[in-house]
Order: sequence, then C-alpha cells, then structure tokens
Amino acid sequence: MNFELKNLPERTGKPRKTGLAMVMDKGLSVREAEDLVSVADQYIDIIKLGFGTAYVTPHLENKLAVYRSAGIPVYFGGTLMECFIIRNQFEDYLRLMDKFKIDYVEVSDGSIDLPHEEKCKYINKLSKSKTVLSEVGSKDELKIIPPYKWIELMKTELEAGAWKVIAEAREGGNVGIYRGTGEVRSGLVEEILWQIPGENILWEAPAKAQQVWFIKLAGANVNLGNISPAEILPLETLRLGLRGDTLLHFLNPPA
Amino acid sequence: MNFELKNLPERTGKPRKTGLAMVMDKGLSVREAEDLVSVADQYIDIIKLGFGTAYVTPHLENKLAVYRSAGIPVYFGGTLMECFIIRNQFEDYLRLMDKFKIDYVEVSDGSIDLPHEEKCKYINKLSKSKTVLSEVGSKDELKIIPPYKWIELMKTELEAGAWKVIAEAREGGNVGIYRGTGEVRSGLVEEILWQIPGENILWEAPAKAQQVWFIKLAGANVNLGNISPAEILPLETLRLGLRGDTLLHFLNPPA
Amino acid sequence: MNFELKNLPERTGKPRKTGLAMVMDKGLSVREAEDLVSVADQYIDIIKLGFGTAYVTPHLENKLAVYRSAGIPVYFGGTLMECFIIRNQFEDYLRLMDKFKIDYVEVSDGSIDLPHEEKCKYINKLSKSKTVLSEVGSKDELKIIPPYKWIELMKTELEAGAWKVIAEAREGGNVGIYRGTGEVRSGLVEEILWQIPGENILWEAPAKAQQVWFIKLAGANVNLGNISPAEILPLETLRLGLRGDTLLHFLNPPA
Repeated sequence: MNFELKNLPERTGKPRKTGLAMVMDKGLSVREAEDLVSVADQYIDIIKLGFGTAYVTPHLENKLAVYRSAGIPVYFGGTLMECFIIRNQFEDYLRLMDKFKIDYVEVSDGSIDLPHEEKCKYINKLSKSKTVLSEVGSKDELKIIPPYKWIELMKTELEAGAWKVIAEAREGGNVGIYRGTGEVRSGLVEEILWQIPGENILWEAPAKAQQVWFIKLAGANVNLGNISPAEILPLETLRLGLRGDTLLHFLNPPA
Repeated sequence: MNFELKNLPERTGKPRKTGLAMVMDKGLSVREAEDLVSVADQYIDIIKLGFGTAYVTPHLENKLAVYRSAGIPVYFGGTLMECFIIRNQFEDYLRLMDKFKIDYVEVSDGSIDLPHEEKCKYINKLSKSKTVLSEVGSKDELKIIPPYKWIELMKTELEAGAWKVIAEAREGGNVGIYRGTGEVRSGLVEEILWQIPGENILWEAPAKAQQVWFIKLAGANVNLGNISPAEILPLETLRLGLRGDTLLHFLNPPA
Repeated sequence: MNFELKNLPERTGKPRKTGLAMVMDKGLSVREAEDLVSVADQYIDIIKLGFGTAYVTPHLENKLAVYRSAGIPVYFGGTLMECFIIRNQFEDYLRLMDKFKIDYVEVSDGSIDLPHEEKCKYINKLSKSKTVLSEVGSKDELKIIPPYKWIELMKTELEAGAWKVIAEAREGGNVGIYRGTGEVRSGLVEEILWQIPGENILWEAPAKAQQVWFIKLAGANVNLGNISPAEILPLETLRLGLRGDTLLHFLNPPA
C-alpha cells in the first residue's frame, strides 16, 4: 500500500480463502493481460476466460503464461464445458484442459438442460484432479428458481466436491440472484446465507451497486466474481471503505 | 482456432463477402490499435474512425499503418464527410483521403440535410475510385423514416454504386433501426430484408442484445457494425454459438 | 490537427484557462497511462486519481512520472482527503501529497459531514501552497441542495481560495447537478451560471448527453470533468462540432 490509514477494515491477502475476486477476461490481448496483472495481481484471485472466448483467442498460450507467472489460476467459462457436453465431447474437454494446463474448472448448466445428478457426477469426477467451481442459476431470465431449491442445489454441489459455488448473474448482472433491473434479490441471498457459509459462495456481481450491496451485507472479504478488468481496483477501494459508497459503513470512529 | 468442436455453424473467413464485422475506433492509441489487431485481425473486416476523431487523433499515420499491415481497410466516419460537405469543402475531403491513402468511404446524411439525389451523386462519383459504404437513417430520433422509404433509399444507393448500405444506429444503438430503448424495430428490419439481399446491408448493432437478435434472424454470417474493440471476440463467440445467448440456437443435436 | 476545416469553433490551447477537461483515472497501469497521454496530452488539463485508488495502485510513482512528463497535473480524489480528515489524519495527508509531489488538491464533503466553515478553512490553508479544487454537492442522492445554497457554497469556497469549484456528479453522473436518470437539473445550472462566472466552475459530466448539454449551453470551452480516458477524444470532437450531436450547433454557414 502506498500510505497508512487508520481503522481500515481487515483485508485478507493472497493466497486468500475469503475475499476472493474473480475477474472475467473476455478477450484481452497478451499485452493487456500484462497491464492487468501489473496493477491488480494482488487483488485478483482467479481469472475466467468468459464463455467460449478461449476458442477464438489468438496467442492463448502466451496469455495463459502471463497469468501463470503472476500466480493467478485461470479457468474456462462454464458455457464452454456445456458446449462440449451437449456435443458428447466431454473427453475432448478434459484433453483441452490438459493441453493448456488448466487446473480450475467451472461446471454449469446455465444454457443447457443437464439433470442435476449428472451435473454432480461431473463435479465429483473433476474434483479428483481439479479445483471445481460449480455454478447455480440459469442464464434464462424466465427460469426462476425458488430459494429452497437454490440452497439444495448449492449444498449438493458442495458435497459433490465443488470448492466454491458460483451464484449466476451473467456478464450483465441481470439474471439469477438479480432482477432484470440489476437489483439484488435480497431475500434470496439472505436465505442462502442462512443455510450455506458465505465463504463457500462466489457471488457474481458485475455492477458497482451490486458489489456495494454485498460488501455492506457480508463485509470487506466477501467473494465476488464477474468483475471486469477495469473495475478491479475500484472494487478494492469499495472493500476498504475508500470510496463514498462504503466510506462510512466501515468506519470505526477514531478513539 | 485453439481446439475442435463439432457442429459449429459455418463461418466465413477473410476476405469475407458476408459475415463482416465493422469495428468503431473512437480514439485508440497506436499501441492499443496493435493490441486490437493482435487478438482480432481475423474477425475485423473494416475499421471506422468514429465521427470526426480523425481530426483530433495524434499519430494518425502510425495508427493507419498498424491497420494497413494487418490488412484491415479503414474509413472515416460519415459525419466527417458531412462536415466537409456542409462547408463546401468536398474537394478537400478527396485530398484528405488521398493524403492518408484511404480507399473506403462512408457517405451519410445523418446530421445534415442533403437532397437524396445529391447524396447519390456523391456515392456514384466516389464509387469510381473507392469502395463506398452509404448510410441510411437519421441520427435524429425524431426523424422517423417509414419502411418503404428505407427500402427505396437503400435500393437507390446500392444502384448508385454503394458496396454496402449501413443501417444507422449511432454508437448508442438507440436510433434508426432501434427504438430509444435499444430494442430492434423488428418489423422494419424484416420488411427491408424481404426487399434487399442481406449481404448488401451492414447493420449497426453496438449492443449485445442487438447482435444476438440479428444473428438469430440472419445467421452467423450477418454483417454487423459499430462493434466496440472490446466486444469483437465476444461477438465472434455469439456467431459460433459459444455463448449462452446463441448456444442452443445453432446446435444440431449430435447424431 | 490532421487537416483543415473552415468555421470550427475557437478552441483554447494548453495551458488553458477555460475549456478544461479533467479525466478520471481509476486504476490505469503505467503503460495504459502512456497510451492515454500519447493520444490525449493536448486535450487533458488535469487528471484525478478517482476516490481512494491512489492507496491500492502499484507503481504509483511511475504512473505519476508519466503524467508529469506530459505536463499534466494530477490530484487525488476528494474522497481520499475525506478518509484522512474523518480519521484526524489531515497532517498525514499533507505529508502524502509532499511525498508524491502532488500540487493540486480537491477539498470535498461528498461522503462525510464537514461544517462548511471548516471546509473553507481547509481550502484556505491548502490554497497557500497548492492549487485547490473544491467540490460542491453530495454523493447522497437524497441530500438535495437548493439552488441558492449551491450558489452560496460555491461563492464562499471561491472566496476561500479555491481555483475552481467542481459541481458533483459522481462517476455515474446521477447525483448533484443531475437527476437519478442522468438528466441535467437545467434550472439549477442556469441559476448557478447567472451568479458565478462559468470559467470558475468545473462541471462533472461523465455521460455524452451531459457533455453535449453543457457544450450547447456554454460553448466549446466549457470546463468538464469526470471524463473517462476512452471518451476524451470523442469529447474533443463534440467541442469542435465534429460529431452529429453538435455539428449544426456550431456551424456558421459559409459566406
């Protein structure tokens, strides 16, 4: 840090168990990836190559090397695995991850119909050799999942071997745990947190208002995902109470 | 491509006749332009220097050289030519294009009143030595053009020598073929496509929902424009069904 | 400029007294800062390191060196000083500015309660050795300040030694001089301008529609702030009438 300020909220450091930030890279160049780690390597815990961008990104090996040398694990968007599963190409997906030395994997069913038992089998199988993030929630705004079901799905997926469960929001932050307007379904989130330890959940929260809401609810070290590269430093200031939105929230009046 | 996936939609390659993407550069630095072509040279068919940015951009020659060496043609935003026309400086505009070795030109009347016959004369004259894109639609949200008129204007401009007609949307995607909310005027688009071959039209579609709408209507190889540099790889995944929005749309169930 | 166009509005050059642009840097890398000045050093008059990002930005000295060598003064977001004041660490803030050779300072009370007399004392004290920008307006959308009060606050702060007063809008452009929708509180702005010379005010105007509104009201050389790095060249085209929004506004019909 560049200077001293009293009474800042305690913030976890890397390697973090809580207070994780997952950034979505949806097509950075190698040099842009270098720029990102040059300012944010201490604030980014995991990077997702959004949806199927890994397929169309040139110089992918070089970009992965940049993230690897910064000590940041990378995984492919869950949609990519769905693309392989629905084509009966799961074995190819395993080879693909081996080829690119990918140790983290997202298992989701946001775009395809996948019986939950089968999803849990994938989670379980992959968890033997990878760190698994499983995602709950549909990308289809019309598929409303009631709270008890969210909880049941999350519990089962954690039991199946998921390291974290991701609460779906898309890049737009307008489905899953959010209404179409981007507003948090606060009752849903609170019910989930009553049943599942927050440290096991990674909340997708692309919009600032969403990040603020979660930080106020669950503290500086809430796990947040789908952060855009340009917003990772601003997010860090929200966590530390160094931005108007959370300045007073965190402040212990000096003695 | 970085790996194999079965049953992807067929995608045209460069040099493309259909499935074009036009990117709007509204002020990239030389190095940012290098970054862009390093990830997207195979997905970008044309670059527009948005509105009058060519006037205020330093190191313009160097940036043009980056795009030229990547084999991507560049043209100045139509608004710039309107700025010259309304000042009776059209001859200066010709010299300007010569000076910067610009072979593509947009002829538009989105911001000035230009009798259609005169617009077509410009198209015709320029088409002798340049590749002309002519734009139909006003930037003024209050100027509603009825469908039969869109069709008539487009037809006449193609006959006058335009290589493609561009359907106006602005950078904001909220006029022309879209409502103020960004929603597609779907009846208008369908009427246009009933009369004019889609391959002759470049649809401005800056927002993801607009891109998805056109891809679902007209396929992976629809011509789309006003794509922001950061969205060109995500657009490619939409075209290929590698993102939730189009994953099922394109899928042929494996045999 | 890359070519000649007749009848453009007169635009001030650096060092500017009016027509200032303040850019908000909320976490650029050193190389991204280099990119920014390579295209926009002539159009950026001041750079603000947004809110508390100065605390969490690595290689801060190097980034400041980039801006310094481009001749662009930098200041820390007013929220950062508020963080120091509310902790009784104002002396530390002075040392911090000395350490990083920061000669401009923003004094604000957007997030904390600060008696106005005390705020003016800070302005006065700091104005002895720094160039002071003081900000009027709350970041809290519920705190509506009536026009007469805006005017009184601005006048007093200018008298206390502020070089410019900033009219608050946040990064989102949705509080202070704007409604929650981003629409300008036009009556408020006009009342302010009736009492305070426009050259003493820096209007935060992050959204294009807001920039257009102020340019149409007060001309090409209105002072505007909270411009994002990617929007500084587009803003310059708005000031010059080289974009549809202001093309006709500025045009003197050729003789």
